[in-house]
Amino acid sequence: MKPCEEEEEEGGGAAAAAGGGDSSGGDPWKECAEVAVQLALRAGQVIRKALTEEKQVSTKTSAADLVTETDHFVENLIISVLKEKFPSHRFIAEESTAAGSKCVLTDSPTWIIDPVDGTCNFVHRFPTVAVSIGFAVNKELEFGVIYHCTEERLYTGRRGQGAFCNDKRLQVSKETDISKALILTEIGPKRDPATLKLFLGNIERLLKAQAHGVRVIGSSTLALCLLASGAADAYYQFGLHCWDLAAATVIIREAGGTVIDTSGGPLDLMSCRVIAAGTREMAMFIAQEIQTIYYRRDDEN
Amino acid sequence: MKPCEEEEEEGGGAAAAAGGGDSSGGDPWKECAEVAVQLALRAGQVIRKALTEEKQVSTKTSAADLVTETDHFVENLIISVLKEKFPSHRFIAEESTAAGSKCVLTDSPTWIIDPVDGTCNFVHRFPTVAVSIGFAVNKELEFGVIYHCTEERLYTGRRGQGAFCNDKRLQVSKETDISKALILTEIGPKRDPATLKLFLGNIERLLKAQAHGVRVIGSSTLALCLLASGAADAYYQFGLHCWDLAAATVIIREAGGTVIDTSGGPLDLMSCRVIAAGTREMAMFIAQEIQTIYYRRDDEN
Repeated sequence: MKPCEEEEEEGGGAAAAAGGGDSSGGDPWKECAEVAVQLALRAGQVIRKALTEEKQVSTKTSAADLVTETDHFVENLIISVLKEKFPSHRFIAEESTAAGSKCVLTDSPTWIIDPVDGTCNFVHRFPTVAVSIGFAVNKELEFGVIYHCTEERLYTGRRGQGAFCNDKRLQVSKETDISKALILTEIGPKRDPATLKLFLGNIERLLKAQAHGVRVIGSSTLALCLLASGAADAYYQFGLHCWDLAAATVIIREAGGTVIDTSGGPLDLMSCRVIAAGTREMAMFIAQEIQTIYYRRDDEN
Repeated sequence: MKPCEEEEEEGGGAAAAAGGGDSSGGDPWKECAEVAVQLALRAGQVIRKALTEEKQVSTKTSAADLVTETDHFVENLIISVLKEKFPSHRFIAEESTAAGSKCVLTDSPTWIIDPVDGTCNFVHRFPTVAVSIGFAVNKELEFGVIYHCTEERLYTGRRGQGAFCNDKRLQVSKETDISKALILTEIGPKRDPATLKLFLGNIERLLKAQAHGVRVIGSSTLALCLLASGAADAYYQFGLHCWDLAAATVIIREAGGTVIDTSGGPLDLMSCRVIAAGTREMAMFIAQEIQTIYYRRDDEN
């Protein structure tokens, strides 16, 4: 793997996700974090190979909400290994949920998985595709692993132990001024006229507030990783899911960033909406500026 | 450099830009193309190093139209070498034009250069930044070299000799149906309310036509390279410049794609607007769908 464009740090990367210096038996999630890294890298190999092959594409909630055989294959690959190693753990994963599994976060150790984030990119061979594996215990996010498959960048974050891209420590931007800010967002799956008006109206508000620019790259998790690395100053989205957010939230917080609800209140992982920013001031500015787009909660059934 | 995600081809890459199999004296622009590749790689090294350093940022035509010391340094580096090697050649380059040089394409051999495409990205360390070097003779584009500095991808195209990313041959998408298309665009430097309305209105029209998605990555040349590689089906923009277009146009055409004016007519390199697509049908659909945003021509003084 090649280095990211950040300051070098001892240890780092997979070591950090796996518990860094703490190799004692007192770290209960060390093995889990190590397995997550290995599975993300293995899934990335599968996805890279699949990028060169023809794809069978199906739709889910809308014509723009795509799924492929690779999404299912990679999700099964990851969950089958984890179930064998950690039989008491629970799972929330994108394609299992689409197939009807309940999406409820309990106090049990829970893996929150997006096997292919950026499926539309994947279908088009647009090289911005990731595997995202988050892990929560007592509803608290413990670690996150995100692997940018085509660029071979492994983003990891472990609660209390920092965030890394390959071997480089991540640090968010300290910008508080919207007129010096680069903003990331994503379109979301709903494409009805009212939703599109709100989506585009939010971009208009931020550009009128003189943001340097808005970027739309087609992968929520990788956009959040770019935020964690300081390459952008804020990210907001309506219509993303807990599996887009779980791993990235640990990584951003460990890189010094803020992850909140679009109302300005605390993050609700199941609410399908988020603002993330390098600074609390920037996050609150975005919260005041944007209009809400309604999406059903992940745990609403 | 690492390979791109495309089919492998003999020769390719720098060899193609440099004239491929034709090593005879009958290829008058072989040396120029070789020098362009070397300069793009050298400029890329400078930009990669500068990405890790603090930057002095100035504005040009608007608060969102940025320039840094690196833009000037890299442009001087490229032009000084070319002037010494090819004293009779002419130059059109972004920062020289901003400083008052005339931007007129004559029949003379002319280098058309963007030293740092994606300056706003560069300022934010958002890893989508390129050097673009195009070359025209008798107003016909002969070759183009674009170097994606952070991902170390070298895109080259030589008239009649194909287009390559590192050692892989590029081939555009063959999609003709907007409802299966991924579209790329960029915001452009003008941010007045009327321009923003048109810019966002165009995205709305394409999403209402059920395009899979729209991506905005902050670099016109790299968006055009993604189009050339088949990772997207169309690109359109108002407010880009001849130095964003020159190299990419050769690369797209040699990858089998179409580059036209937003009216649907032939490309006018100086008109500051473009549609590029894998197929002519897709390009014409976009031309009919989008509304014109007025920008002054590059050669209008």
